[in-house]
Amino acid sequence: MAASSSLASTRRGGGTPSGFLTPSNLGLLIDLYELTMAAAYLKHGIVEDSTFEIFCRRLPPHRSFLIAAGLEQAVEYLQRVRFAEDQLEYLRGLPVFSGAGDSFFDYLGKFEFRGDIWAMPEGTPFFPQEPILRVKAPAPDAQLLETFLLSILSYQTMVASKAARLTLAAGSREVIDFGTRRAHGPQAGLLAARASFIGGCLGTSNVLAGQQWGIPVLGTMAHSWVMQFDSEADAFRSFREIFPEHTIMLLDTYDTIQAAQLVAQIKARIPGVRLDSGDLCELVPQVRRILDEAGHVETRIVASGDLNEEKIQEIARLGLPVDSFGVGTDLVISSDAPSVNLVYKLAERIASGKRIPTMKVSTDKATYPFSKQVVRFMKNDRYVADRIIIDTEPAPAETLLQQVIAGGRQLSTLPALKQIQEYTRRQMARLPEGVTRLQNPESYPVEFSPRLRDEFSQFRDRLA
Amino acid sequence: MAASSSLASTRRGGGTPSGFLTPSNLGLLIDLYELTMAAAYLKHGIVEDSTFEIFCRRLPPHRSFLIAAGLEQAVEYLQRVRFAEDQLEYLRGLPVFSGAGDSFFDYLGKFEFRGDIWAMPEGTPFFPQEPILRVKAPAPDAQLLETFLLSILSYQTMVASKAARLTLAAGSREVIDFGTRRAHGPQAGLLAARASFIGGCLGTSNVLAGQQWGIPVLGTMAHSWVMQFDSEADAFRSFREIFPEHTIMLLDTYDTIQAAQLVAQIKARIPGVRLDSGDLCELVPQVRRILDEAGHVETRIVASGDLNEEKIQEIARLGLPVDSFGVGTDLVISSDAPSVNLVYKLAERIASGKRIPTMKVSTDKATYPFSKQVVRFMKNDRYVADRIIIDTEPAPAETLLQQVIAGGRQLSTLPALKQIQEYTRRQMARLPEGVTRLQNPESYPVEFSPRLRDEFSQFRDRLA
Repeated sequence: MAASSSLASTRRGGGTPSGFLTPSNLGLLIDLYELTMAAAYLKHGIVEDSTFEIFCRRLPPHRSFLIAAGLEQAVEYLQRVRFAEDQLEYLRGLPVFSGAGDSFFDYLGKFEFRGDIWAMPEGTPFFPQEPILRVKAPAPDAQLLETFLLSILSYQTMVASKAARLTLAAGSREVIDFGTRRAHGPQAGLLAARASFIGGCLGTSNVLAGQQWGIPVLGTMAHSWVMQFDSEADAFRSFREIFPEHTIMLLDTYDTIQAAQLVAQIKARIPGVRLDSGDLCELVPQVRRILDEAGHVETRIVASGDLNEEKIQEIARLGLPVDSFGVGTDLVISSDAPSVNLVYKLAERIASGKRIPTMKVSTDKATYPFSKQVVRFMKNDRYVADRIIIDTEPAPAETLLQQVIAGGRQLSTLPALKQIQEYTRRQMARLPEGVTRLQNPESYPVEFSPRLRDEFSQFRDRLA
Repeated sequence: MAASSSLASTRRGGGTPSGFLTPSNLGLLIDLYELTMAAAYLKHGIVEDSTFEIFCRRLPPHRSFLIAAGLEQAVEYLQRVRFAEDQLEYLRGLPVFSGAGDSFFDYLGKFEFRGDIWAMPEGTPFFPQEPILRVKAPAPDAQLLETFLLSILSYQTMVASKAARLTLAAGSREVIDFGTRRAHGPQAGLLAARASFIGGCLGTSNVLAGQQWGIPVLGTMAHSWVMQFDSEADAFRSFREIFPEHTIMLLDTYDTIQAAQLVAQIKARIPGVRLDSGDLCELVPQVRRILDEAGHVETRIVASGDLNEEKIQEIARLGLPVDSFGVGTDLVISSDAPSVNLVYKLAERIASGKRIPTMKVSTDKATYPFSKQVVRFMKNDRYVADRIIIDTEPAPAETLLQQVIAGGRQLSTLPALKQIQEYTRRQMARLPEGVTRLQNPESYPVEFSPRLRDEFSQFRDRLA
């Protein structure tokens, strides 16, 4: 394989704990081959602009749309990615780079992103083959961005899309992200909180997400609280004393119905109760009745514990009196579609000043040539179809890719998260009803422009 | 729900980019309820030691073992977690904490972990109900650790376990982590590289993981490299010129067999070729023959593209001449089991100096009381059974939980990653053959000690 470093000699020093990304180590969050390719482009003088596009080849099974998310972190990465001296030193020590020459390390040492970025705004629904982000930059620079951009956009897109489905299932009820501990590591939990808010969640249990983006932070109590007391009644009373306006009593540490009866006896307002196990269809109506009979008609019921779209939809369909759903695992790992598989593909390149379209024709993995734009047609306030065009073709309707970075400079402030959430909601409402149906959804119509189809066929024939 | 902050007012300043964890913001990577519970423990004077244990309730379907991983990052977290002034300020502004009082914020401001940690060494195979990490600390302190510890241990455990299965399937062939772009965000990619090395992978494409832990970094070339040239032959030749000892030619940009013929014509050593699409069972033997006939008998074949245990096992069973498997999505999201669901449960607490065992009896989610230890019995160099005992019971064989932190102080340096990988391999080799079988594996026998079973039954009867 392409390179290997000594295992013995590279234990880190005392500074940053291992396993964390910081603004100063973003450069090396990269697959090795991006660096070897960049070195080889430089050596061969392949330094004119290349256009790469990020898109999804096909939707996960049973899905009918995705929601673009993660652009804010992508832009922050593009503004900050550098290669620090300790990183260059590490790379210099890798045998694979022995032939790369000093000029490569000089290049990396001075690297900052100076290209152009076009992207769909976060919260935009998109479909297979549609570029959601387009990079135009010198070939080596553009190549270096692949790993990070795919990683940051894929995950948030996956979670935002899942959250949109969960909120569709919940209808007028609230969905809350309780997933941090179930996400694939701490940063995934943080990003999931952001993306699930974009997709329509009311809030998150993740406090850092609250601080970073102003997302409402929400929480109840754990079983450990109840278990710290000799009596469950004491546990409930003691918590309420301190958080009279914010206590959600967790009912299922021992026996849900007995716990509901204990709560019902409290002679004060109880903001809510939570059920985290057992048969919700059986327990929720009983708990509601016990609370109502004791006059706690305003006490809200939160359900949690391995919920997903299907269970939420069933609860909603049965009209069970659940006010909020706390969703963990299913939301943050998107259980039914735990990978979105965005790809980053070369669409065209400049050689001697001339635009040269590029494509690959691998089995099932063909790509379309040319720098592209996406056009979305609307009729009676509903989106009806998209068309993917070459970016130089005239656009017959709204175009979805907007320039966000020009020559390395961010063109305007990105929208606040609450605005993105509202934009997402409006976009979702404009999709055809059949497309946002959770079971057996319709496909949304997407076509390539006649010219793009022509170019694709001719090109493929030439390559064959 | 329990709290909410103003959405308008909390856009972050210019310092750290949003969406990243840094050593200075670890404290808030926490579910809100850990903080409310900590505040309530303090108010009620519940500050004696509590023992929490992390374990897995049941194995994912079709799985027979898990590999403990992530302790290094857990220990680093425990050594570094603090609440900075800007974090305290954010928390003070949350309505839920209006009744918490200054003493809570004083407590957080001074917080550092001063308790005890016992844990299984990274790389230890474990089974349901067995604690893999045990915390003993004042109740509020121990509660604050739940979210982060679950997150960091669950993900690495999941990936290390998956990597162990992939390397079992591959037998004498190499498995390499190519998954960074498919992981759930950039940090997940970094952690996956570490965990997959523990589980037996030879190396990773993730360069930061190479720098941080000395993992061999490996890579080939992307389709974009080939597409940058007018001719595929030029693309191959140009890359080899710069990396004569490290070039792996990617064959499937246009036509795999034609590309193999181009490579075969090169009159110089070709380290390797990669096939990323198409029917490997059909293509690999043809490519091998083309290479061999041209004298490239030492050129290695790397296969990638949606590989998993089953496909790798099939390739190995058929004896196809694949030398290395590059695995992405399936490894880093552990497709067949994308969540491990570790839990953090109160096992006992001290009240007025007396040890009080605790348990919950929720449907399907009962827990066992008492601070526990795990004993592993060996016979003829093979592990034969485990027993979970109360930590005060005499241990009749090797015990798995070792103390790593005492009174907040790390007791010794943790092993280097290469040592952990070797330890894992030795441990795996000691498991009964039926347990490490990939299909229809046997269950490994785990029992609770008679005393623990007695205590559990009596306790449950008292609660019922």
